[in-house]
Amino acid sequence: MINDRTVCAVSTPPGVGGIAVIRVSGQDAITVCDKLFVAGKPLADQPANSAVYGFVRRDGETLDDVLVTVFRAPHSFTGEDTVEISCHGSLYIQQQIMQILIENGARQARPGEFTLRAFLNGKMDLSQAEAVADLIASTSEGQRRLAMNQMRGGFSSELKLLRSQLLDFSSLIELELDFSDHDDIAFADRSALHALAVKIRNKIDYLADSFAAGNAIKNGIPVAIIGKPNVGKSTLLNALLNEDRAIVSEIPGTTRDTIEETLSIQGQLFRFIDTAGLRDHTADRIEALGIQRSFEKAEKASIILYLFDLTQEEKEDVILSNQWLQKFNKPFLMVGTKNDMARRNPVHTTGDVQAIHISCKEPADIERIQNDIVQLANIRPLTDSDVIITNIRHYEALCRAGEAIRRVLDGLEYDLSGDLLSQDIRECLHYLGEITGGEIATDEILGNIFSKFCIGK
Amino acid sequence: MINDRTVCAVSTPPGVGGIAVIRVSGQDAITVCDKLFVAGKPLADQPANSAVYGFVRRDGETLDDVLVTVFRAPHSFTGEDTVEISCHGSLYIQQQIMQILIENGARQARPGEFTLRAFLNGKMDLSQAEAVADLIASTSEGQRRLAMNQMRGGFSSELKLLRSQLLDFSSLIELELDFSDHDDIAFADRSALHALAVKIRNKIDYLADSFAAGNAIKNGIPVAIIGKPNVGKSTLLNALLNEDRAIVSEIPGTTRDTIEETLSIQGQLFRFIDTAGLRDHTADRIEALGIQRSFEKAEKASIILYLFDLTQEEKEDVILSNQWLQKFNKPFLMVGTKNDMARRNPVHTTGDVQAIHISCKEPADIERIQNDIVQLANIRPLTDSDVIITNIRHYEALCRAGEAIRRVLDGLEYDLSGDLLSQDIRECLHYLGEITGGEIATDEILGNIFSKFCIGK
Repeated sequence: MINDRTVCAVSTPPGVGGIAVIRVSGQDAITVCDKLFVAGKPLADQPANSAVYGFVRRDGETLDDVLVTVFRAPHSFTGEDTVEISCHGSLYIQQQIMQILIENGARQARPGEFTLRAFLNGKMDLSQAEAVADLIASTSEGQRRLAMNQMRGGFSSELKLLRSQLLDFSSLIELELDFSDHDDIAFADRSALHALAVKIRNKIDYLADSFAAGNAIKNGIPVAIIGKPNVGKSTLLNALLNEDRAIVSEIPGTTRDTIEETLSIQGQLFRFIDTAGLRDHTADRIEALGIQRSFEKAEKASIILYLFDLTQEEKEDVILSNQWLQKFNKPFLMVGTKNDMARRNPVHTTGDVQAIHISCKEPADIERIQNDIVQLANIRPLTDSDVIITNIRHYEALCRAGEAIRRVLDGLEYDLSGDLLSQDIRECLHYLGEITGGEIATDEILGNIFSKFCIGK
Repeated sequence: MINDRTVCAVSTPPGVGGIAVIRVSGQDAITVCDKLFVAGKPLADQPANSAVYGFVRRDGETLDDVLVTVFRAPHSFTGEDTVEISCHGSLYIQQQIMQILIENGARQARPGEFTLRAFLNGKMDLSQAEAVADLIASTSEGQRRLAMNQMRGGFSSELKLLRSQLLDFSSLIELELDFSDHDDIAFADRSALHALAVKIRNKIDYLADSFAAGNAIKNGIPVAIIGKPNVGKSTLLNALLNEDRAIVSEIPGTTRDTIEETLSIQGQLFRFIDTAGLRDHTADRIEALGIQRSFEKAEKASIILYLFDLTQEEKEDVILSNQWLQKFNKPFLMVGTKNDMARRNPVHTTGDVQAIHISCKEPADIERIQNDIVQLANIRPLTDSDVIITNIRHYEALCRAGEAIRRVLDGLEYDLSGDLLSQDIRECLHYLGEITGGEIATDEILGNIFSKFCIGK
């Protein structure tokens, strides 16, 4: 997975900009950079953490003038000697400096390799390393906060403590097995082990339960937008998007007909699911209501928005839709659109059905519908101390650790022998260890995790 | 154009990456950053040029952990107090930090504003500031080298010296005008002025002459690719491009039919001009030769490549083309393509006509044609000390300064009066000053120059 070679990569976003930063890390980082960098004195003699102005030279000629900062092991992100070269952000210059570094003995860093090295050098555990990638990918306040909590220790320090306590018991029980001739010897206090196992189970359950919330924060709360053609779904989406244009992205759905737009409202990510183009050719009345085609969307969403055109929709249809929506047993919102036209030409009233009437041209209406969506999502605001699982890998490991610790508890209840207990304890230890790394992390696990990083981090 | 407000911008390329750098510059840069950055001690007490690890805080909560480096005036790029914040490269985090900076009193920097401030604070002259943008935009070794030479003083220091000498004469002559009652008084030594004017004229001529070469280096040497349909023009282009894929760009031509591909060969930029789709419907023989349609291309190119299919082209056509090409009186190369097929099925020989036979599948052939193109371009390799004009603004100013200094020389020859001389000298001073900035730079000139920069530089 890793070798001792010094690595280098452009750490800033790919492309042309004012400046770019190239990071070099490894035991030869300073030696390698001294071969190409010329300033008052060699980098080897520069104080740590100091930005030095100088020149990247090649064949006696100045390639670029740069700022170079030296970080010395272990006081760097990776825990290794690290040099950061801040050069002019021309793609050509970035490439050339990388090339010179490689000619002088460094090699191109693999995706996430700087963070991998930080993990291997004990600067952070595995869940913290994973949080670095989540932090970089964050596009909403909720995502950023979760990643930041996890990166700063989050649940992993607590899990590590519980795990080390369980490890002590494991050792004691294994010791009993060595004395298996003496049935009456019990080094491990069974009631203390029981208390610890309960504590671990509760912690695991708490964390595993948080996954649904964490997943919603990370990937967005799914919102289905339902309604007949031309009720103004795209208009509403665009109006919502305009509030926060810069952090909007379009995610292709699982089928070619599904479009998902993610959008941050009040710091929380929402995923608006729209099956575009499906209901343009409607035949009968029921079909026109979009009931059949909308069923799946409503099923997989956490919140349903039902849109109807205030200038067109008939009262019975609105009532029918309302009844249909109630069957899903999840929060929904009925939204009458084109209110600006309806004022002049009100075709119907919605009677007993609760609905909000909006015009997408009216900023106050858009704000109101945003507030309603956030309220329906019923999200408790995250705090700095919230411990929430967002990573499917962590969730799976927790589930398996939970199964194992439950077997330990059962075993204690039925007074099972030490060797049976021991096996389940070891399994629990294994899965807890997978989350934070520790001695468990295999090359395969590490490869999976870090291949998802960008190059340069 | 500029005010005293502290400015901030993301200086790294736009997008998501491992890290991003936000630059803050101005007299309040340190005060503003101290409001959001938390480390061991305030930035105001940190030593200059030192990278400090700490946290960006908002409402008591950690937004991101960052590295911050303080540069103190005048020892910074802009000459002002400057703070560089190196944060995680999430777009969301970049935006949030920018927002907090703006809330705390900074404003978003305009394109090139950091460099503009460097110019206004006397850190560089105008031609050096312009070279910063050229350096960032450079995509070939030639472009980079020209920009670097210009940024490091290049021609501007010499022009400034000549200009200041001319300014002395100007003062002396204006002094004579104050004593205009005394016709015989001449403070300014006419023969010394003549010598200086000759020196300036020669320098201006030299620099203006270099513009053609500089332009070729900056924008690429134009190469026309001519030949019948299906002779393998795109195949050749692709084969050439493959060598250097990363720094290739497609420039839409002036007409919709013209495609220009720029491509760096041996550090020199070439612009391959192809009028795609023009010759797909050929009728008569002459038309099939592409002569008429190819005429314009050949006219505006510096080098012509004539491609013909070794398996198809008739001998007479090759000879006819050869004669036609010679009329342009510029370097050309006749290239027989599909040599791999021709070996099995040689339809013709090219007789007396000099041509190279290639197969685009043969790396050695591609290398050979690259060498031939570079040789035809006959480029003297640039050195560190080469002084070459690449900027049309500089070229225009030089031309006008040259006209003025020629009038001064004429005036000296005809022994014109001081007030007439003075006018031409002032005009020459004005245009020389426009190149390096000095006291001449108007808001309009500055606005034009810096609006072409990227934000963050």
